[in-house]
Amino acid sequence: MTDFDDIPVAGNGLLDRRIFLKAGAAGGATLLTATAGAQDRPDWMRMPGAGMSETGAPSEYETQLHRRAIGSQTGTTGSGASRTPLPYLDGIITPSRLHFERHHSGIPNIDPDQHKLIIHGLVDRPLSFSLDALARYQTVSSIQFLECAGNSLRMLAPEPLQISCSLLHGLVAASEWGGIPLSALLEETGVKPSARWLVASGGDACRMSRSVPLDKIMDDAIVALYQNGEPLRPANGYPMRLFLPGWEGNMSVKWLHTIKLVDQPAMTKDETSKYSDLQDNGETRLFSFPMRVKSVITSPAPGLDLGEPGGYQVSGIAWSGDGKIRRVEVSADGGNTWADAALDEHVLSKCLTRFRSAWRWDGGPAVLLSRAVDSAGNVQPTRSVVLQGRAPGAFDHCNAIQAWQISRNGKVNNVYS
Amino acid sequence: MTDFDDIPVAGNGLLDRRIFLKAGAAGGATLLTATAGAQDRPDWMRMPGAGMSETGAPSEYETQLHRRAIGSQTGTTGSGASRTPLPYLDGIITPSRLHFERHHSGIPNIDPDQHKLIIHGLVDRPLSFSLDALARYQTVSSIQFLECAGNSLRMLAPEPLQISCSLLHGLVAASEWGGIPLSALLEETGVKPSARWLVASGGDACRMSRSVPLDKIMDDAIVALYQNGEPLRPANGYPMRLFLPGWEGNMSVKWLHTIKLVDQPAMTKDETSKYSDLQDNGETRLFSFPMRVKSVITSPAPGLDLGEPGGYQVSGIAWSGDGKIRRVEVSADGGNTWADAALDEHVLSKCLTRFRSAWRWDGGPAVLLSRAVDSAGNVQPTRSVVLQGRAPGAFDHCNAIQAWQISRNGKVNNVYS
Repeated sequence: MTDFDDIPVAGNGLLDRRIFLKAGAAGGATLLTATAGAQDRPDWMRMPGAGMSETGAPSEYETQLHRRAIGSQTGTTGSGASRTPLPYLDGIITPSRLHFERHHSGIPNIDPDQHKLIIHGLVDRPLSFSLDALARYQTVSSIQFLECAGNSLRMLAPEPLQISCSLLHGLVAASEWGGIPLSALLEETGVKPSARWLVASGGDACRMSRSVPLDKIMDDAIVALYQNGEPLRPANGYPMRLFLPGWEGNMSVKWLHTIKLVDQPAMTKDETSKYSDLQDNGETRLFSFPMRVKSVITSPAPGLDLGEPGGYQVSGIAWSGDGKIRRVEVSADGGNTWADAALDEHVLSKCLTRFRSAWRWDGGPAVLLSRAVDSAGNVQPTRSVVLQGRAPGAFDHCNAIQAWQISRNGKVNNVYS
Repeated sequence: MTDFDDIPVAGNGLLDRRIFLKAGAAGGATLLTATAGAQDRPDWMRMPGAGMSETGAPSEYETQLHRRAIGSQTGTTGSGASRTPLPYLDGIITPSRLHFERHHSGIPNIDPDQHKLIIHGLVDRPLSFSLDALARYQTVSSIQFLECAGNSLRMLAPEPLQISCSLLHGLVAASEWGGIPLSALLEETGVKPSARWLVASGGDACRMSRSVPLDKIMDDAIVALYQNGEPLRPANGYPMRLFLPGWEGNMSVKWLHTIKLVDQPAMTKDETSKYSDLQDNGETRLFSFPMRVKSVITSPAPGLDLGEPGGYQVSGIAWSGDGKIRRVEVSADGGNTWADAALDEHVLSKCLTRFRSAWRWDGGPAVLLSRAVDSAGNVQPTRSVVLQGRAPGAFDHCNAIQAWQISRNGKVNNVYS
C-alpha cells in the first residue's frame, strides 16, 4: 500500500492498480471497535437453515436477475426479444435462464423422441438423425458468445435514449456450447462437389431459415445439444440448434430440423426481409456474418448509478467474432486519454472477455468509454464511423463505442461522444 | 471416411477417431427415402410457440436434471449432501442450480444489507466490510472445480455398491467463480508479522470454521461473490464465500462472516471431528488440503446403460487440485490396454476437463476405466493404493480409478478392478 497504488494512468482518475481504502475511498470498510464488533446475531446464525433441494434458486434478495423486454411486436405470439441483464452479472458466463431471447415465432415445445435432424440436398446419402443416433457421435464443447445482429441498435437513434444498459446492449451472452461438429455428420452423408452452401431450417412454426457457406461449417460449426453443461433449454433451441461461433446469432438456427446442401445461397425470407444491411447508396449488403470487435462498460451503467465520490471498479465485457480480445482501453474523460484495462484470466476465442479498471471518481462530471482491439487487429469504431454509409433505419451490426456520462449526482446517462 | 477411422488403439474396441455409421454403428442415422422424408408436421411446427419470459426453464422432457441425495443424517435440519447429476451433464460447466450441496447446519437466508465480513486478529486495523464496500474493489473470475473431501467415499465400501454415478461421485462441480482476491483485503487491514494462518467462519448457525495457511490465501484465495456470472446462490454461500481453488470443498467456507488471523491453526470442531484422516497406524493426518488428480467416466455409467452393440462415445471428467489435466487414458478391457482420450478445448487449471473416446462395443463383456495424469505429473491411483494406510472408516480424499463393468445386456455396474 504505497503511493504507487494511486498513480493515475489516464485522465480524470483512472488508476494504475487497485482502489485502496487508505487513499480515501468513500463507502469503504469500517474500522472495527470493540462495540462495533459485538453485533447481535441475526436469526440465520441462531437456528439451522433450510434443507437441501433437488434444484437451487437465487436469493430472494436478488430482484434484478431477470431478462428485460422492450419494443417487441404486439399482436403477434412469441415474436420479439428479451435482453440479458448485463449490469447485474459479472465474469464471462451467462446463466442459461438469463440468456437473451430472439424468437421469430415463439418457442416450440418439442418432444425430443419425435424430433429428427434431416440432412439432404447435394449429398451422397440423405440421412435422418434421431437424438439417440446423435448420442453416438463424439461431441466437443467450447465457451463462446452469441450476439443478435440487432444488438445495440438503439445506439443509432438520433438522440441518446435514456434506457438501461440491458435494453441497449443485452442481446449478447456467453455460454459453454457442446455438440457434434457438423462436419462429422456431413462425412456420414457425403457432400457432392457442387455443394457450396447449406440452408439450415428450424423446427418452429415460421421455419426460420438461413444460408451458411460450407467453409464456415467445416471450420467450427456444431449441432449444439448442450448449453452450460446441461441440455439446451427450449428458449435456446431444445433439443438441438446450429451453433456458428462468432457469427450473427440468428444464423445459429434454433430447433434445428433440416439441413439442405445447395450450390448457392437460398435467399430465404429471413435473410432478405431481415439480416441484410441497407446502404445509403441504395444497395443492400447481404451476408454480414461475423459480429465485429466490441465492448461495453456494464458497471457503472444507467440504473447502476454511483454513490459518494471515491474509488470504483469500472467493469465490462468485450468480444469479437474474429478471434480473441487482445486489449481493452478505458477512458474517463470522454476519450482524451486512455488506459489499458485488466483482463480476467480466461481470454477465449469468440467469447466474452471481462475487463476491469480502477477509477477514483472525484465527484465531477466524467464520460466513461471502452474501446476493444481483437487478435486480428480490428479496433472498435466510434458511433460516427458505424453510421457511415448506412441507409436510414439500417440497424444491424452496431459495434460502436458506448459513452456513459456521469453527472455530479452520480447518475449515469447514455450520451454520444 | 477411410479404414483409418476404425483402427483400434487399445483392446476391446477403443478406436482412433470417431464413430462412423458406415462402419456399422447400430442405432445410427436412418437413410432417407422419399416416403420417410414426408413426415407429418408436429403441432409445434404448425402454430406459434410460447412467448418470451423473464427467466427460462429446462424442457419438461428433461426429467433427470435434479440433484440426488443419499444417506443424509435424519433427525437434523439441513445437515447432509446432495449430488450433481453427472451422467446427464456434458462439457465442464455445472449449472448453479445443479451444483452439489454439503451443508452442516442448513442454508441460511441472509439479508445482504445486514451481512458484513469482519477481518480481525493479528492485523493492524480490524475492518468490517459491507457488500457495498466490497463492490468498490476489483474482482477477478476463473472457472474452477469444487469437490467435497468426502466425494467418492462409497467406492471404499467392501463390496461395490450398485448405485448411480451421481451418488458415487457427484460431490464435484465446476463453475466460474468471481470475487475479490482476499490478499487485497488483507492489504487494507495489514497483516502482523506473527500471522501464519487464518480462521474463516461461516454465518450459518453452526459457524462452520476452518484454518487456512496464509500462503494459500496470498496465492489464489478469493472472497467469492459470483458463480457462473450471477451472484452466489444461498446454497452456495450467498452473499459471499471463501473460495480456495483446488482444495477440499469445506474449506471454501460458505456465508463467510469472519476471518481471524492467527499464528497457528485453531483446531476447530470442523477440522478435528471431521476432515482429518485417520491412519491405520493410529495416527491422524491433519490438513489434507488439495484434492488430488482424479477422473470418472460419466457416460456410459450406471443408469445410462448401453443399447444395441455398436459405436459409443465414452465421456467423462478429470480434474486436479494441483494444476491442469495433462492426459486422460481410457481402457475398455479392465486395464490391460489403454488409449489416450481426446480432451475438450478448454483445459484449465484446477478445473474439470472433459475427455472423450470413441468405442465400438462388440456386445461382449467389457470393463471401462479412466486414468488421469496432471501437470505436476501425479497419476490417478488404483483403489487398492488409495486404501493403503487408511484406518477403517477413513473415507475422505478418495481419488481412485473407477471401473464400470458392461454386461452382455448393456447394463453398467460398479466393480472393483
